[in-house]
Amino acid sequence: METPDNATAPAADAAEEPTGIAAQDWAAASADPQYRAAVVDLLGALAYGELAAFERLAEDAKLAPTLADKAELAKMASAEFHHFERLRDRLAAIETEPTKAMEPFAAALDGFHRQTAPSDWLEGLVKAYVGDSIASDFYREVAVRLDSDTRALVLAVLDDTGHGNFAVEKVRAAIEADPRVGGRLALWARRLMGEALSQAQRVVAERDALSTMLVGGVADGFDLAAVGEMFTRITKAHTKRMAALGLAS
Amino acid sequence: METPDNATAPAADAAEEPTGIAAQDWAAASADPQYRAAVVDLLGALAYGELAAFERLAEDAKLAPTLADKAELAKMASAEFHHFERLRDRLAAIETEPTKAMEPFAAALDGFHRQTAPSDWLEGLVKAYVGDSIASDFYREVAVRLDSDTRALVLAVLDDTGHGNFAVEKVRAAIEADPRVGGRLALWARRLMGEALSQAQRVVAERDALSTMLVGGVADGFDLAAVGEMFTRITKAHTKRMAALGLAS
Repeated sequence: METPDNATAPAADAAEEPTGIAAQDWAAASADPQYRAAVVDLLGALAYGELAAFERLAEDAKLAPTLADKAELAKMASAEFHHFERLRDRLAAIETEPTKAMEPFAAALDGFHRQTAPSDWLEGLVKAYVGDSIASDFYREVAVRLDSDTRALVLAVLDDTGHGNFAVEKVRAAIEADPRVGGRLALWARRLMGEALSQAQRVVAERDALSTMLVGGVADGFDLAAVGEMFTRITKAHTKRMAALGLAS
Repeated sequence: METPDNATAPAADAAEEPTGIAAQDWAAASADPQYRAAVVDLLGALAYGELAAFERLAEDAKLAPTLADKAELAKMASAEFHHFERLRDRLAAIETEPTKAMEPFAAALDGFHRQTAPSDWLEGLVKAYVGDSIASDFYREVAVRLDSDTRALVLAVLDDTGHGNFAVEKVRAAIEADPRVGGRLALWARRLMGEALSQAQRVVAERDALSTMLVGGVADGFDLAAVGEMFTRITKAHTKRMAALGLAS
């Protein structure tokens, strides 16, 4: 998972004094079984996402035009795997079978990756960049509403693997060399965003605990209007990132 | 890369007091430009092998029947990547461009992997096990003839990633469940061994410095007869491993 560009990251209200669950640690917050179930869902989704990101980056490494590019992607894949390990260990530590926590999200994530298999190196880079940035924006928005222990873990595994800058540099150079590439990749990025939203809706429809946490109720501060605002911020950040890449979104 | 089963590992004469180059460190041994070139070749081949192993294991992870199996293979892939990093850093430390050192071996290793793409999970496990074991046997044989610094690095990156036991356990269980699987996998293992030998001959024919080190001349103790004995030991170890797997080799 990626740290989005600082300039385009959605502004989370991190400066405000935390209240409610955000002011509690896991021991206190997890006394509420609904909150506990929502966190297990969140960590399970994130863990499977990291494992899927590992696979996708390792797959992209095979398309790399040079040995140095290949090594760079393998490094990022390995970093994603270590994030996965931390999430899996955390699930085990809170007495949850990690596999059971991940399984509900496998179909949506596998579906996303199947529907958006890149046909070349540049499509792979754009996909990794767009997908990781959106996922990272989403988890950062959610993180500020989590208990302090879970929040620290989620922010740690979203730490920058350096993929963003690498992708931006390579894609920009390719568009400069052949401007027609930009049109093709802009279409590709739109398709990625559409597919991501459709799979996200599927998850929200199927996972009660997670959706209840997102839409008020369990954790703090989210109501339906807030969710709408969050999606607006994430979409805006996506548009800015695409412009920075030289793509109309 | 794998530690072969202790019981079946070819006996390297590690107990003997090192003499010649094996008694020197890198600073002393590398004064000989032919020895230096041979080590750069060896580290380049090993580094590319680790990167290729990373890709292969990541690819096999996609065929995994369960999420736990997938995570296990991703872990091994990540371990291979960290071995690659150590070799690449070492090449850079001895003022060699890592990419340049690896490139001469890319065609042979890519050729091997292309010719032996596994068609299912079990074929992938057998391939990883057979390939890693043979490579590990070979590098251990060579290691005892290297200077002390290079030897320590080579032995460190051959450290067990746990893949051997994992593969043996899974393959045995599959053969127990359906004995016909054994016949198919035995044929597969023979094909892997044949393809590995044919690619190894290609490398030996193309890389003078490396072959000269292997066949006497540069490092200590290898002459053509010794190379023949080494291949006999490696082949015997392979046969024993296949028998342990429940496969006739």
